[in-house]
Amino acid sequence: MEQTLVRLRESVRATAPILVDFLRDEVEKTGFHDVVFGLSGGIDSALVAYLAVEAFGAERVHPVIMPYRLSSAASLRDAQAITSDLGLKADLVEITPQIDAYFSRDPSASLLRRGNKMARERMSILFDHAAVYRALVLGTSNKTELLLGYGTQFGDLGSAVNALGDLYKSQVRALAEQLGVPAAILHKAPSADLWEEQTDEKELGFTYDEADVLLHHWVDRWLTRAEIEALGFAPELVEGVMRRVRLNHYKRVPPVIAKLSSRTIGIDFLYPRDWGM
Amino acid sequence: MEQTLVRLRESVRATAPILVDFLRDEVEKTGFHDVVFGLSGGIDSALVAYLAVEAFGAERVHPVIMPYRLSSAASLRDAQAITSDLGLKADLVEITPQIDAYFSRDPSASLLRRGNKMARERMSILFDHAAVYRALVLGTSNKTELLLGYGTQFGDLGSAVNALGDLYKSQVRALAEQLGVPAAILHKAPSADLWEEQTDEKELGFTYDEADVLLHHWVDRWLTRAEIEALGFAPELVEGVMRRVRLNHYKRVPPVIAKLSSRTIGIDFLYPRDWGM
Repeated sequence: MEQTLVRLRESVRATAPILVDFLRDEVEKTGFHDVVFGLSGGIDSALVAYLAVEAFGAERVHPVIMPYRLSSAASLRDAQAITSDLGLKADLVEITPQIDAYFSRDPSASLLRRGNKMARERMSILFDHAAVYRALVLGTSNKTELLLGYGTQFGDLGSAVNALGDLYKSQVRALAEQLGVPAAILHKAPSADLWEEQTDEKELGFTYDEADVLLHHWVDRWLTRAEIEALGFAPELVEGVMRRVRLNHYKRVPPVIAKLSSRTIGIDFLYPRDWGM
Repeated sequence: MEQTLVRLRESVRATAPILVDFLRDEVEKTGFHDVVFGLSGGIDSALVAYLAVEAFGAERVHPVIMPYRLSSAASLRDAQAITSDLGLKADLVEITPQIDAYFSRDPSASLLRRGNKMARERMSILFDHAAVYRALVLGTSNKTELLLGYGTQFGDLGSAVNALGDLYKSQVRALAEQLGVPAAILHKAPSADLWEEQTDEKELGFTYDEADVLLHHWVDRWLTRAEIEALGFAPELVEGVMRRVRLNHYKRVPPVIAKLSSRTIGIDFLYPRDWGM
C-alpha cells in the first residue's frame, strides 16, 4: 500500500499548470473572468484558492467564508491565513440566521440533517455571489469524496467547474504542500466541521490513505475485488468502500427522467457542457 | 403549427400508466416507499401530485407548500385545492425568514437573485423533508423548461426522479386535464410567482405553444434551422430559442472535472443512476 501511495503522491508533481490552464479555459469560454468558491479553512478549498490565484490573479478570485455558530474558531483562523497569504479579499457570510430560522420548527433535527441543510445553504450563497461578481462557482470536492459520496448532493457537490475532482485526498495533500499551503492546514485532520471533534476518518471508519489506494486499484487500474484483497486489504473494508461508491452513485448523475419521446434529456439528448459556448 | 400541437397533445393519451409505473419502479428500487415534492399551485406540480397518488396512494405522498411572503394567495389556494381533492396532507413551510435573513445584508438584490435563492431554499427544504420521511424528491420540471433552461440549477431543477421531464408544457396541460386537475389550475397563466403579474410567457418573449412545436421539430424530429423556418417560424424566434437551449446546457450536466487520471468522474467513470441498487 505504502508504495502505491507514494506513487499517487508523486504523480501530481506536474499537475498544477494543467489545473491552472483548465480553470482559465473553462472560465474564459463562458465569457466570465472571475471565480467564487467557499473557503472553509480545510485543505481542499485551500488548494483551490492557490490554483485560482495562479490562474486569475487575486483580484478576480472571490472566496466566501460561511461559518455557522458552531463552526470551529480554528477553521476561520485557517481560512484567514490563506486569504492573507494570497492577498485575497474574502466575503464573510454567517449562515446561522437562515439555518436556525429553518430548524426552529424542528429543534430535534439530527446532525446529519443540519449538516446537509448547511451545505445546501452554502451552495446557494456561492451561486448568489457568482451572480453578483459575474463569476463561476469552483467546486472543492476531491475524487475520494466524490467516489465515496461523502458530500451533500446539490450542496458542496454542486458547482460549475471542479479542478480537484480527479485528485484523491492524498494527492490533494501532496499538491497543496507543493504550492505552499500553510503547514497548519496541511497537517490537521480533515473534518466537515459540523460538530466538535468530528473528523472524516472517524465517521468513515477508514483512513483516506486506505481509501485512496483501494479506489485507485479499483477505479483507475480496474483490479477485481479478489485482486484487491490479495494485496492485503481486509474483505470488509473492500466491501464497505465498494458499497459506498455504488450506493452514492446517484449523487454523481443528473435526476432521472421518464423516457417518452425519441430524444430525452440525460438519455439521448446529450452534449458536452460547453456545447453552447 | 396548430396540427403539430394537436398531435403533441394527443400523444400523451396513454402515458399516465407509463409514468405511474416509472415512479413506482424508480422509488421502489431505492428501497424507499414515499415521495416528497414542492406543490406550488401551478400545473406541473399539480400533475406530479395526481401521478404520485396514483402510484403510491395518498398516505405515501408528501407535498410541501413553501410560500414566500410575496407569493400570491391564489397559488396557495390552488395548492390547497389539490391536496383536498386528492386527500393529501401537505407540510406548509414558509421560506420568508431564511430568505429575508439572507438578503438583509443586501436589500438592493435583484428579483432574479431573490428568485434563484428561493428556488434553492425550496430544494433544500424538500431534501430535508425527504430525509424525515425516508422519501425520494420528485422533480416537477417539464421538457420545455428543461430545454430552455427556464429554472434554477440546484434549485427547482434539482430532484431525484422526474416524471415530467420528457413532456412539453402543452403535453403537461393535456395530461393534467385528462387526470382531472382542477380547471382553475389548468387555465391560469404559468408563472414562477416571484412578483405580481409575472408570467413565464411575458418573460420568455414567446408562448409555450410556439416553443413546444419549435423544440419538437428541432429536438425530437431533428429538423434543421432552415426547415423550421420554412414551416413559418420567424428566424429571430428560432435563433432565440436555439440560443437559449445551447447557452443553458450547463444546467443539464454535472460540474465539469479536470481530467488527470485514467478514469475521471463524469468523463469515463460512467454508470446508470441505479448502478448501486
